[in-house]
Amino acid sequence: MAQNNVVWHHASVTREDRQARNRHRGVVVWFTGLSGSGKSTLAHALEKRLFDMGCQTVVLDGDNVRHGLCGDLTFSETDRKENIRRIGEVAKLFAEAGVIAITAFISPFREDRERVRGLVPHGDFIEVYVECPLEVCETRDVKGFYKKARTGEIPSYTGISSPYESPERAECVVNTAQTSLDASIDKLVDMLQASRVIQPEA
Amino acid sequence: MAQNNVVWHHASVTREDRQARNRHRGVVVWFTGLSGSGKSTLAHALEKRLFDMGCQTVVLDGDNVRHGLCGDLTFSETDRKENIRRIGEVAKLFAEAGVIAITAFISPFREDRERVRGLVPHGDFIEVYVECPLEVCETRDVKGFYKKARTGEIPSYTGISSPYESPERAECVVNTAQTSLDASIDKLVDMLQASRVIQPEA
Repeated sequence: MAQNNVVWHHASVTREDRQARNRHRGVVVWFTGLSGSGKSTLAHALEKRLFDMGCQTVVLDGDNVRHGLCGDLTFSETDRKENIRRIGEVAKLFAEAGVIAITAFISPFREDRERVRGLVPHGDFIEVYVECPLEVCETRDVKGFYKKARTGEIPSYTGISSPYESPERAECVVNTAQTSLDASIDKLVDMLQASRVIQPEA
Repeated sequence: MAQNNVVWHHASVTREDRQARNRHRGVVVWFTGLSGSGKSTLAHALEKRLFDMGCQTVVLDGDNVRHGLCGDLTFSETDRKENIRRIGEVAKLFAEAGVIAITAFISPFREDRERVRGLVPHGDFIEVYVECPLEVCETRDVKGFYKKARTGEIPSYTGISSPYESPERAECVVNTAQTSLDASIDKLVDMLQASRVIQPEA
């Protein structure tokens, strides 16, 4: 390798190249909502729909992040902030690589979500508020965490003993207590088409 | 959303689905070598070649990781380990998403690299040793770091005042002091085809 080649290592493949190839933009679709609101269900269903439409996708959720990248973090306030920060940075890397990065984390604090929004170009952070009344989330209580939070066995649980700050300017709101999964996904796909993330279907 | 849907959120899109779509495997191509050995140059040139062949790719290097995901880390021994751990976890997420994740970090310690190897299925971690004599790297010294390391202004610099442990079982070795960039990329592409990461060209 010639010595004068060594500094040449920037952006041989641009974001535009990837977008032209994939025929969609790389963005972050950020689901936020209470535990049990249906974030992961929506995220994976949206991924499946987008994949079937030919898109490059990834879902980041507790299953693939909590024990890996963020396996060193506790549930302390500081560490929960750091958790969201890292997920935001990774989602950004995926978006830059041309992928539609779909994240599914409670992410209860506006400040943390706004920080992630600020990481990517305007329009590339798409916040989706997964709205669902606490009492409905509690009846779902798949992992039994709400019960433990009510008895105090789990301290500072979002919605019970720790606040959830709902989005003030989410790009999309889906109410999983009132809307079917299919209808919610339709709404999300319409929104992604309207905002030119993906192309309208022919 | 029906309550009984809420637990359904696993792997609607499988790794096999992505591989069939992309017509290549998602893997980690891990470049390791001294500063100035040409890792980033090779990584970006390899990405360009693979992209032009139709592959989904990403390069993770200091440019997009050091100030983002790992922006909270120092150059202490502990933090350098954590740096490599996080990069490994992120590369794994990309590989699982069907992307060829190419990383370019000195990653001087065998133990750290082997830990990353252990994160992904057998055959999905492809270690590339970017071999180049220290004296050649020093003459390149693009950022002036070797000079500062020699005067002691930068303490514990790999190759000068901190060890570099070369790979014992790298999947590929490229010697950038002896081989042109194009020939090195040819060698890497041949290796990826031979190991069935990408398909042989028709």
